[in-house]
Amino acid sequence: MVKNEQVKNGVIFPVGDKNVAYQDFFVGQSYLQGLVSDPDVSVSVSNVTFEPGCRNNWHIHHDGFQLLLVTGGEGWYQEAGQPARRLHPGEVVVTKDGVKHWHGATKDSWFSHIAITAGTPEWLEPVSDAEYAALDEEEK
Amino acid sequence: MVKNEQVKNGVIFPVGDKNVAYQDFFVGQSYLQGLVSDPDVSVSVSNVTFEPGCRNNWHIHHDGFQLLLVTGGEGWYQEAGQPARRLHPGEVVVTKDGVKHWHGATKDSWFSHIAITAGTPEWLEPVSDAEYAALDEEEK
Repeated sequence: MVKNEQVKNGVIFPVGDKNVAYQDFFVGQSYLQGLVSDPDVSVSVSNVTFEPGCRNNWHIHHDGFQLLLVTGGEGWYQEAGQPARRLHPGEVVVTKDGVKHWHGATKDSWFSHIAITAGTPEWLEPVSDAEYAALDEEEK
Repeated sequence: MVKNEQVKNGVIFPVGDKNVAYQDFFVGQSYLQGLVSDPDVSVSVSNVTFEPGCRNNWHIHHDGFQLLLVTGGEGWYQEAGQPARRLHPGEVVVTKDGVKHWHGATKDSWFSHIAITAGTPEWLEPVSDAEYAALDEEEK
């Protein structure tokens, strides 16, 4: 069963196009709509939508941070060495400078968040299917 | 007639409490929910909700900027010397360093936006009732 399918049509903000720019750093299909990208502004703002099972690779924001504002569906956020956090609309995540993390949809739900990002990303290894599958088991 | 009354219950993000901290710089009642306030992060993020007719004073963000992500209802944004822009959910506003501006609800609608803010605000004079009333006339 796929949950929150209406999220694929955009929650308040447009869903945008298939996320080609970052597709090498995602498992599964995501969609990207840039909202703010301005040389006079020190952060970029984007709307990111994940199909069920889609997640980005482990990554780090150097000399910056990332703020996630969850707008739709159900997702995961995990920092290296920490348990994963299940995310719902209205929740907010703060990722500080240098912290290795990933985020994405749960296996059976669409998911969307606004990402407010500063600094330079370093993309690392994917979240393996085994790691990802284990998340639901941990909560049982 | 009051439009978009459901906005007062919060759109995705909590509406928060009456905006006491900034009440001297608003005409009418607003509500404020802080979302991110962290010494390690160079921006603050808040959810701001305006009752119909409510608007903030003219103000400037010095050594910073402000990004508005419109989440509900109908509002106005105006920079000094420019025509006002009518805002709807999904729209985004970028206010650059040093630009004098104000934002708020239309006279007959609730309004909410996420505000992403950097720098130091300088609060100036209110948008007078005459200026505010003239906005609807300009569009006719």
